[in-house]
Amino acid sequence: MGAAQSFRAMCDREKNTNIRVSLPAVCIVWQISMIILFGIFVRYDKESDAHWIETNPKNMSKIENDFYFRYPSFQDVHVMIFVGFGFLMTFLKRYSFGGVGFNFLIAAFGLQWALLMQGWFHHLGDDGKISINVYSMINADFCVAGCLIAYGALLGKVSPVQLMVLTLFGVTLFAVEEYIILNLIYAKDAGGSMVIHTFGAYYGLAISWMLYRPNLDQSSRLQGSVYHSDVFAMIGTLFLWMFWPSFNSAITEHGDGQHRAAINTYLSLASTVLTAVAVSSVYQKHGKLDMVHIQNATLAGGVAVGTAAEFMLMPYGSLIVGFCCGILSTLGYIYITPFLEKYLKIQDTCGIHNLHAMPGVIGGIVGAITAAAASESVYGTEGIKLFKFPPAQQGGHQAGALCVALCFGIGGGILVGAILRLPIWGDPADDNCFDDESYWEVPEEEESIPAVMQYNNHMRNKDVAESNFTMESDTRPRA
Amino acid sequence: MGAAQSFRAMCDREKNTNIRVSLPAVCIVWQISMIILFGIFVRYDKESDAHWIETNPKNMSKIENDFYFRYPSFQDVHVMIFVGFGFLMTFLKRYSFGGVGFNFLIAAFGLQWALLMQGWFHHLGDDGKISINVYSMINADFCVAGCLIAYGALLGKVSPVQLMVLTLFGVTLFAVEEYIILNLIYAKDAGGSMVIHTFGAYYGLAISWMLYRPNLDQSSRLQGSVYHSDVFAMIGTLFLWMFWPSFNSAITEHGDGQHRAAINTYLSLASTVLTAVAVSSVYQKHGKLDMVHIQNATLAGGVAVGTAAEFMLMPYGSLIVGFCCGILSTLGYIYITPFLEKYLKIQDTCGIHNLHAMPGVIGGIVGAITAAAASESVYGTEGIKLFKFPPAQQGGHQAGALCVALCFGIGGGILVGAILRLPIWGDPADDNCFDDESYWEVPEEEESIPAVMQYNNHMRNKDVAESNFTMESDTRPRA
Amino acid sequence: MGAAQSFRAMCDREKNTNIRVSLPAVCIVWQISMIILFGIFVRYDKESDAHWIETNPKNMSKIENDFYFRYPSFQDVHVMIFVGFGFLMTFLKRYSFGGVGFNFLIAAFGLQWALLMQGWFHHLGDDGKISINVYSMINADFCVAGCLIAYGALLGKVSPVQLMVLTLFGVTLFAVEEYIILNLIYAKDAGGSMVIHTFGAYYGLAISWMLYRPNLDQSSRLQGSVYHSDVFAMIGTLFLWMFWPSFNSAITEHGDGQHRAAINTYLSLASTVLTAVAVSSVYQKHGKLDMVHIQNATLAGGVAVGTAAEFMLMPYGSLIVGFCCGILSTLGYIYITPFLEKYLKIQDTCGIHNLHAMPGVIGGIVGAITAAAASESVYGTEGIKLFKFPPAQQGGHQAGALCVALCFGIGGGILVGAILRLPIWGDPADDNCFDDESYWEVPEEEESIPAVMQYNNHMRNKDVAESNFTMESDTRPRA
Repeated sequence: MGAAQSFRAMCDREKNTNIRVSLPAVCIVWQISMIILFGIFVRYDKESDAHWIETNPKNMSKIENDFYFRYPSFQDVHVMIFVGFGFLMTFLKRYSFGGVGFNFLIAAFGLQWALLMQGWFHHLGDDGKISINVYSMINADFCVAGCLIAYGALLGKVSPVQLMVLTLFGVTLFAVEEYIILNLIYAKDAGGSMVIHTFGAYYGLAISWMLYRPNLDQSSRLQGSVYHSDVFAMIGTLFLWMFWPSFNSAITEHGDGQHRAAINTYLSLASTVLTAVAVSSVYQKHGKLDMVHIQNATLAGGVAVGTAAEFMLMPYGSLIVGFCCGILSTLGYIYITPFLEKYLKIQDTCGIHNLHAMPGVIGGIVGAITAAAASESVYGTEGIKLFKFPPAQQGGHQAGALCVALCFGIGGGILVGAILRLPIWGDPADDNCFDDESYWEVPEEEESIPAVMQYNNHMRNKDVAESNFTMESDTRPRA
Repeated sequence: MGAAQSFRAMCDREKNTNIRVSLPAVCIVWQISMIILFGIFVRYDKESDAHWIETNPKNMSKIENDFYFRYPSFQDVHVMIFVGFGFLMTFLKRYSFGGVGFNFLIAAFGLQWALLMQGWFHHLGDDGKISINVYSMINADFCVAGCLIAYGALLGKVSPVQLMVLTLFGVTLFAVEEYIILNLIYAKDAGGSMVIHTFGAYYGLAISWMLYRPNLDQSSRLQGSVYHSDVFAMIGTLFLWMFWPSFNSAITEHGDGQHRAAINTYLSLASTVLTAVAVSSVYQKHGKLDMVHIQNATLAGGVAVGTAAEFMLMPYGSLIVGFCCGILSTLGYIYITPFLEKYLKIQDTCGIHNLHAMPGVIGGIVGAITAAAASESVYGTEGIKLFKFPPAQQGGHQAGALCVALCFGIGGGILVGAILRLPIWGDPADDNCFDDESYWEVPEEEESIPAVMQYNNHMRNKDVAESNFTMESDTRPRA
Repeated sequence: MGAAQSFRAMCDREKNTNIRVSLPAVCIVWQISMIILFGIFVRYDKESDAHWIETNPKNMSKIENDFYFRYPSFQDVHVMIFVGFGFLMTFLKRYSFGGVGFNFLIAAFGLQWALLMQGWFHHLGDDGKISINVYSMINADFCVAGCLIAYGALLGKVSPVQLMVLTLFGVTLFAVEEYIILNLIYAKDAGGSMVIHTFGAYYGLAISWMLYRPNLDQSSRLQGSVYHSDVFAMIGTLFLWMFWPSFNSAITEHGDGQHRAAINTYLSLASTVLTAVAVSSVYQKHGKLDMVHIQNATLAGGVAVGTAAEFMLMPYGSLIVGFCCGILSTLGYIYITPFLEKYLKIQDTCGIHNLHAMPGVIGGIVGAITAAAASESVYGTEGIKLFKFPPAQQGGHQAGALCVALCFGIGGGILVGAILRLPIWGDPADDNCFDDESYWEVPEEEESIPAVMQYNNHMRNKDVAESNFTMESDTRPRA
């Protein structure tokens, strides 16, 4: 062990993961900035202000406060952001703390910055104030989702300070991109196939390309999962899968809009599971399933139905979208991820290219086609007003929006990737990647002691008493 | 190890768990069939169609869309189906992937097939189309629950292909049984004590009886739990327990119906926890608690209050139901499960007889008695219209419904069990049961390496360097 | 090992953890008492009674049943109580069963007793009956939260019988304290900073002080976490964090009240995460983060914003509250918890002083200040009626309420602590604390076998075949 440790120590000297100054500084300074900016700009919306009881029209019931239309969906989205994305990233054997913990950190920062950025673009009143309500909270969570997707490509290879920078720029780019797509191009994208998933995924992939590590195989011993880390990851998978109907319906029109978006997403996701299982099985010896596919590819249908979820996609249309994406996403894990790493120098830890990028683009295309095929007979004279333009033109605008999302993702990622290459962020050395030891106080592994002790019972002639003592005394005391 | 491995290999030759053709074929073909059938039959309901804005009565607020009455409950039910049932079945030390993964697969297939089957029976319009909405989604999840309960008896002993077949037939039988009970007999069963739990449990037990494995003790080494798998299972237990009020109230009448069903279930479940703990403790040396009971028997009160949850059962009535079921269910785990296995040749991995079968039957009986005791003074002249018939007659109909559920469960189970005995489904050999290795790529156990490495530090005179390398290189690379 | 085992056996003789009589007796007798008292006192509320369809005003939609205003929040609170608190307490390496299991038991008992106690004080009708509805269910869950907080200080050191006693008295004290604060002093405390957190935390700390164990370091080997137990605890952390907006808004005024409380809590919690991370990092070598802080201190903002959540605290005000509490709570874990243990003889397993006590007191103070600063221009002429008294006076009442909560917590804790010191409750010996073995059937650790087996492959010259057999045969068979 001596040689290995001294080698690791040498690398640590080169790559210093000490973030004792930078991380606290970033957190405190940025949080103080948030307080000041919120103090200047952010106020309650009419429906969350104590004056509502007076300003609220007399014949309107309190249950018609937008809170009751959207709060259950908001909470589901909130679970997706923190438990869904967080636990999906616990699959690595020794990066579960970083997966769920840094996800927590950057989401908590990102949502504040998103409230400001999105507020300036979308909710700035005549008085120069941003009004926030349950709708803003959902949108802030959405905005954060883009950055968390990007984190998936970089999982285990970056420092928390880099993630904070990624989030700061990611949210900013997101807000501009979203403004262009929704308010200038007038495209529809309720579930964010383009705005969230396409942007977030290409943003992360471009950063990963900029931060390419040719010697990443030095930490290959830590790149797999263990049995229980795969079960933890299923918590993330399932909460994402179950609450995706809420994600895609959270900000759609009241009434039939939310209703239809939930149905479409429910169906698309169900379909995806079967094709992901089928492809996973057919590509393995003896038809064994691969947990990587079950954890990730089963979600592709939710991404791909995002844009069109509120459209009259029809139930069978949703199933078809899910069917194709389950196949494509699983094939992506089998063929495209290795290809990207080998030939395009893109290292994508969680395979976000398969789960978010490709399904996101498909979602944009499905949205464009569905919008272009809209007709008054299907939507009704009122329902068709969902679209700003006549069908064909709307389809063109949808396609344009997809290009905007792609450009912002790739361009922004290259820019931010260049910033993140600066040697000041405390990122780990190649052989220290995917290791919580770099940024966390990790408890010694006690679970294994019983086995060793039992083993010892069969080797009584050896003196191992002190080994137990040593291991125990290594344990981090609580509090 | 050599002899054991060659023996296992021999069994593998006899029982071939290779499902590389059958599983993908079933998934793809059935999913395509779903798409075709959905294309022909399934449309949006009035309240989820874009025309709703026109067809919706002018004086009705958008918040009165059924979506807002039921969507929060739907999401809770959805969590029960995928995380609740899924994680409850992760308790086995080496079958957590199969527990949560196959649960995911068959639920995703089952809900599509359920939308069709239940649609044909319940929601077929004059135009030959099935209209789906949030209510259909809840019912589809309910229907799937029946099959997942049945899976509980078979956990670890069947192949995913068998589970798909079980689900295909299970959903079909469920839809017919449900139609008879609700639409021909006019029994009430909001929480599905009879329709879901009694049917599902006896369906699973009958299949398990047909698939009896006399030499199952060959895999007894894998039939227990480990410390952390028991903690994972508690995730399932708690999400089932917490959201059961939503399960039993999801499809009851708007207003007081949903309100009352939630209260009754909340109380019944609380009561069950105390009696399950009491019985678990009193039957163990030193009063120690058994995780099997805490994970399962604490849920019996939710099953048993299902039918009567929307009735005027009264708060104390709910507590009494929970009280009895906590005791009975725990005693079932202690006495009846071993009895069933030894004398009736029914191997019930999760003990669904104690958690679903007995409490389901009790729930049916409680429902019959409560309905028979209904009176206008208690329900009011409007409230009593909940029942189709006068009280005594309604009680009889409820009892008849229970018999229907039992017959469909047992009869259907024997039929489907006979089909599943065909030697074509890829089920595991007796000594391969409860082992994820059969159907999953399982990562090598890395967690233990630190302990072994620490142990090595005390045995430096031995050359073990290559052992670490070997173990590491065994690890499945991600993606 | 022989000497250690005989020493442990000796301690076991002194401290007998056999609860085979006491635990079942308490559970059964108290549950029967609940049934009798519910039979005498508890009835459905008007909105959950089958007569509602008649008593409900004609022009009122069914969606205006209070169920639809509060049920989604109720379910979120329910998840916090059972999964949030339960899993937060699974962090110990060998007390996860006790953490999540006893939490389950005492919450299930406590909510029944709370419905009665709170009913007698708050919802007793002229007919001597308690009317229950969704509002009562939320309040019962709130009341239970106080006792679960207290459990946090005692985790691992008490028997389940002691916890039942703690809950019986805790709920009783809570109901009285709540009545004084809300109905006599007319203070506002929607999120329960004072009523729930301050009371619960000091109640637990006072009990812990009464039960001081000078030789607790004898079980120090079990006081830490292991890698996966820390990940389990993050499930608890995140569900508490995500659903705290529902907690603080669950019983506030319909409409803008609930809306505003959710926004304030959402913001405060986001702010807390950043400062908790900053302080955690700055106090560790190399800036490494400590999971203890991430699991706990990130929640302090939710506690501290409880009282003022429904007030016009303003978004930046919420951020400031969260900012301060994240710092203070983390510093508490670093400095105050060791100080309390060393000098004040208060052993606080989960650090509830940092997570609930200090933030709770701050929450009370923030509430008093915010109420005292209220004005008609900010709240509107209708909105200001939220407060019973003019601002300055209301502020005084708020401050008085904080004192009541403190007195009830400390005084009640000393009283109940004295009762729990009786040598009849089956609590564990000092060297048996934090060990599930005392009260649970714990499965043998099988996970480690593969590693040992792999290790054996490199030591073939030793006969270890029988060791595998031995370990396997130790495993607890299921059911």
